[in-house]
Amino acid sequence: MSVLATARRSSLLPQTGRDARLATRAGGFKGQTAGVAPGYVQGNLAILPGDVAGDFLRFCQLNPKPCPLLAASAPGDFRLPTLADDLDIRTDLPRYRVFRHGELIDEPTDIRGHWRSDLVAFVLGCSFSFEEALIEGGIELRHITLNVTVPMYRTSIATMPAGPFHGPMVVSMRPMKPADAIRAIQITTRFPAVHGAPIHVGKPELIGIADLMKPDYGDPLPIGADEIPVFWACGVTPQSVVATAKPEFCITHYPGCMLVTDRRNSEFAIM
Amino acid sequence: MSVLATARRSSLLPQTGRDARLATRAGGFKGQTAGVAPGYVQGNLAILPGDVAGDFLRFCQLNPKPCPLLAASAPGDFRLPTLADDLDIRTDLPRYRVFRHGELIDEPTDIRGHWRSDLVAFVLGCSFSFEEALIEGGIELRHITLNVTVPMYRTSIATMPAGPFHGPMVVSMRPMKPADAIRAIQITTRFPAVHGAPIHVGKPELIGIADLMKPDYGDPLPIGADEIPVFWACGVTPQSVVATAKPEFCITHYPGCMLVTDRRNSEFAIM
Repeated sequence: MSVLATARRSSLLPQTGRDARLATRAGGFKGQTAGVAPGYVQGNLAILPGDVAGDFLRFCQLNPKPCPLLAASAPGDFRLPTLADDLDIRTDLPRYRVFRHGELIDEPTDIRGHWRSDLVAFVLGCSFSFEEALIEGGIELRHITLNVTVPMYRTSIATMPAGPFHGPMVVSMRPMKPADAIRAIQITTRFPAVHGAPIHVGKPELIGIADLMKPDYGDPLPIGADEIPVFWACGVTPQSVVATAKPEFCITHYPGCMLVTDRRNSEFAIM
Repeated sequence: MSVLATARRSSLLPQTGRDARLATRAGGFKGQTAGVAPGYVQGNLAILPGDVAGDFLRFCQLNPKPCPLLAASAPGDFRLPTLADDLDIRTDLPRYRVFRHGELIDEPTDIRGHWRSDLVAFVLGCSFSFEEALIEGGIELRHITLNVTVPMYRTSIATMPAGPFHGPMVVSMRPMKPADAIRAIQITTRFPAVHGAPIHVGKPELIGIADLMKPDYGDPLPIGADEIPVFWACGVTPQSVVATAKPEFCITHYPGCMLVTDRRNSEFAIM
């Protein structure tokens, strides 16, 4: 879908976080959340049992660039009032994935039947927020221009481990002209709560990426001779780390079906 | 001279901008100003006749990254009170260069004998200010480690012309590991009054630099396989542009013998 088509489609989508959650909760919206509620923060979801929740919280604290924690619930509490007053994490995402010992067992649109009194919900910032700021800054994002998924790579950079959670940092890559790369570093520095500044620029081999055309997730992107690759820590890192840890029970968002909050992206700019 | 030797030497040098100017004015200090008055802003000097001063002011306004104007005097006025109360631009630099129609005619330590009622003094920010912030940020500056002059290159980037002033932008280059390059972009973004953020990173050929080992000014620097070149707009740009314009009369600082002001580098951080 072209950017223009996305924009046209967007006007038919919920325009605020609250609209998006109410439509989702009522069962009227089950799609991907890209283009939903422009300007509102969307988040990745990880729900974990109490016995590993403390370790995961510490993992996020140790690795803020790939795991920018926006909110964590009290055990058993399905509300996240700092993200939205009415939020119910069991019903407000279009679709979920439920895992038992690392195995996918369900992809429901509602997880009330899976809820337990020891579960802790974690919402992590995502690149949608800083991409909005980059687009507003006039910077072309190639994966959006070409309507593909941003390429992502497992790197040789190890995350700081916490309990069962450990593994390589995953990064996303956006090719840019050098002047745009510098501007993109400035713009994303303003948003530390949603991955912040890039973690690498230029030479991919220095972070263990052998071939940019062979991403581990997402789609390869053409890079012009006048461009350099710019790498951001990616929210797939905690998903990959949790998959490796194989906790007894776990719920995540379904790919592309994020939590839409009442917070605005601009609120997370530090200046 | 090693960094350590520079530091030892520094303790014998004037420690404030005022000390430096008073010693210079009294004829007791005639050396280079690197290491003088740590923490205080040093500036490049250009003094031009009234008939081209307006054009040069406009040139600086059009090209703020290579020509960050810190102060401009009223015609004939040798004071610059926004930089220091007592400042006398005719006596307060260790050494000057005097040009007539582009030809070097004198290298005096005092320009009172050359002063005219139509001269306008321009003081431009210099890289010393942001380099101090980079060093405080723990970033190695190779040219300081090796005690050589930073390499500078004429680029294919044209400055915006104003009257007789036109020509290519000159850049300085500092090799850095990618993570340091990102941090250096963040740090120097805070100092727009002293060249600010880099104008280019990576691929030198994109800005018309054929061989990094053959700088147009300064010394070549080794670049590690794990490093990328980072390019800042350079204060040699206005010097080169003025030399090309060959004004009827012109005075500049002698290379390395800058104006030391009472303003602190930290005052110019925008955040």
